[in-house]
Amino acid sequence: MTSSATAPLLRRLNAERALAVLREVGTIRLAELADASGLSRPTVDAVIEDLRRIGLIAETEDAPAGRRGRPARLVRLRAERGYVVGIDIGVHKCVVSVADLRGAVLATEVRQLGQELDRKARLDGVRRTVRAALKPAGVERSAVLAVCTATPGVVDPRTGVVLACDVLPDWKGLNLRTELGRSFGAPVLADNDANLAVVGERWRGVAAASQDVIYVLAGERLGAGIVSGGQVFRGHDGGAGEMAFLSLLEHTPGAEGIGALASHVGKEVVARLREHDAVRPGGAEGLTGDAALLMAAARDGDEEAQQVLEQILARIARAVGTLALLLNPELIVIGGGVAAAGEQIAEPIRRRLPQMTSLPPRLEVSSLGDRAVTVGALRTALDVVESSLLDNLNG
Amino acid sequence: MTSSATAPLLRRLNAERALAVLREVGTIRLAELADASGLSRPTVDAVIEDLRRIGLIAETEDAPAGRRGRPARLVRLRAERGYVVGIDIGVHKCVVSVADLRGAVLATEVRQLGQELDRKARLDGVRRTVRAALKPAGVERSAVLAVCTATPGVVDPRTGVVLACDVLPDWKGLNLRTELGRSFGAPVLADNDANLAVVGERWRGVAAASQDVIYVLAGERLGAGIVSGGQVFRGHDGGAGEMAFLSLLEHTPGAEGIGALASHVGKEVVARLREHDAVRPGGAEGLTGDAALLMAAARDGDEEAQQVLEQILARIARAVGTLALLLNPELIVIGGGVAAAGEQIAEPIRRRLPQMTSLPPRLEVSSLGDRAVTVGALRTALDVVESSLLDNLNG
Repeated sequence: MTSSATAPLLRRLNAERALAVLREVGTIRLAELADASGLSRPTVDAVIEDLRRIGLIAETEDAPAGRRGRPARLVRLRAERGYVVGIDIGVHKCVVSVADLRGAVLATEVRQLGQELDRKARLDGVRRTVRAALKPAGVERSAVLAVCTATPGVVDPRTGVVLACDVLPDWKGLNLRTELGRSFGAPVLADNDANLAVVGERWRGVAAASQDVIYVLAGERLGAGIVSGGQVFRGHDGGAGEMAFLSLLEHTPGAEGIGALASHVGKEVVARLREHDAVRPGGAEGLTGDAALLMAAARDGDEEAQQVLEQILARIARAVGTLALLLNPELIVIGGGVAAAGEQIAEPIRRRLPQMTSLPPRLEVSSLGDRAVTVGALRTALDVVESSLLDNLNG
Repeated sequence: MTSSATAPLLRRLNAERALAVLREVGTIRLAELADASGLSRPTVDAVIEDLRRIGLIAETEDAPAGRRGRPARLVRLRAERGYVVGIDIGVHKCVVSVADLRGAVLATEVRQLGQELDRKARLDGVRRTVRAALKPAGVERSAVLAVCTATPGVVDPRTGVVLACDVLPDWKGLNLRTELGRSFGAPVLADNDANLAVVGERWRGVAAASQDVIYVLAGERLGAGIVSGGQVFRGHDGGAGEMAFLSLLEHTPGAEGIGALASHVGKEVVARLREHDAVRPGGAEGLTGDAALLMAAARDGDEEAQQVLEQILARIARAVGTLALLLNPELIVIGGGVAAAGEQIAEPIRRRLPQMTSLPPRLEVSSLGDRAVTVGALRTALDVVESSLLDNLNG
């Protein structure tokens, strides 16, 4: 059977299946590829021919000593065929990662951004971070095949326009796709940071096996990325996952994130810590100011700080309990700034879940930490590249 | 082109498309069916032949006076080919509707059930209500092709087992599919009542055009049915839509439904009303006791009752706001017992939404009232019947 005899859709599905294997291995024999993909050997031959035509396959011959007969054909995914860029634009910093087509991260660059930066200055900072990441990766801008950028707030993923963004007020109305598109000759996608983080956790984090999972981005802000049946749940305008209900129901406007909660609930303790203590080293990564101070003091045995932290965690637990009750996921992943504190924050939340819901989900701390967002952005960009390359299969 | 030349999947999709038209009209000419379905005339001929083979089509000839040539072929869906039963098992009552294959409701029977009934007595009450509904419909049990039943609590829709049910404690572990299956020679499905209500509202209620909609069942209990992208969002174990977070976040255990809220928030006012006033007529349908008393008094101008109702509605509004923030639907439908009060309850909630979310959804009162659940159950049973009949197309 030649590849041209296979219906276009099936041909594409076969190629996707082979690619999924090729991404995970280095060099592989065709017979092994057939085994690993579940495709027949003739189908594998056809698929490899298809993938070679679109530049995705490099081939060598195996000539093992002492074996007879024809040498086995060895193939690998040409990861250097092109590159993708994942960007995480935050309030305090910008993280940019560059990866090849196998998703291997070649370089990551983190730059601090001032909270006070206006739209133009922030975008300039993002562009500088991108340049700084491409250089050590040895990747030319022209070799970038797709870019995906994360931002706080509500993004319309169809257009790339920021529809709402409380923490970056002048961000509203910004078209990230066209704005950053000028810097690349490649498609630029944009999505909410928590939505991309849950994609990252499902790809390379603790949520790999989960179809119904919620990622709680718990840092200075609180946000959620919801996956149901393996698909990101975006809502009608892309606004799903907004966690401001916590302050809505507990009458503490604006106090959603750990930082705001620390300042609000732990006002006096924080004041004392500021006065008497130097900022301790080893605070939770990604958290600044009051929250980092409080968590470090709690870990060092300050009883008042521990009490305040317990109160904060009880609130976060009620937010997590609300998600569990309303959406019944199998897994909730705690990520963002607090993830660095690991079980210090996970255990008190996990302990409370069975009191709040009769179907308590598993609760895990993110294994990707503050990289979950860029990892999800890279995966999303890779999806676009693969999809667009495979569009050429039947051309 | 003969029908046998069409690929099985396409053939089925064509049949589904024609059925969607035939369900909505009475008798129709084939040319009109082609127009309305967007199918070509030869395809319509093939589809009609397919549907006739599985007993779904009756045909007559049109012989209009004064026209020449061949009489036009007229077809109609044989709605009498079989029947479906929709059951809503509640805490206080059971509603059963019987419909034909066009979904025309032939009879509806409502029977009161005591809150104290045990599992067996409640199931006996359900069976009696089914018998009482089949009789006036003139439908033999053997002509029933599928049954769908609604229940409070969490139901695993794959098995029909009640996984959790706060309001009917001995309901947990009940397999509704096998238990009611004995009474019918047809498949019996089971789902949560709010999940079926949102299906009903999308079929014949105010949510017809909405892909992202939440139905809030606000009666003695509070529950939600969530539809995202046209699909019911069930969660990992079928438990999505649980609204107990309200009492979780506001520290009032068990006070979710209007009834419980009325007793809790309006304790003193309710006591006075009970003492001094007879129960007024015209209370909100489907609400019993304190809630009905309070709503009737508020409508009659009792200021204290109005204030309590305002407090209760503010709480319901915060629950609705939480759903809007977290899930970003385009429409929220208020149903259940309070729906009978219409704008008396919708307006105060609608007014608060823009203060709670930057993307406020539309808010409508159910137009199906307490029938939304059985309408959704009928639609679900019809889906099963059609799907099973169409499975025979290529047989």
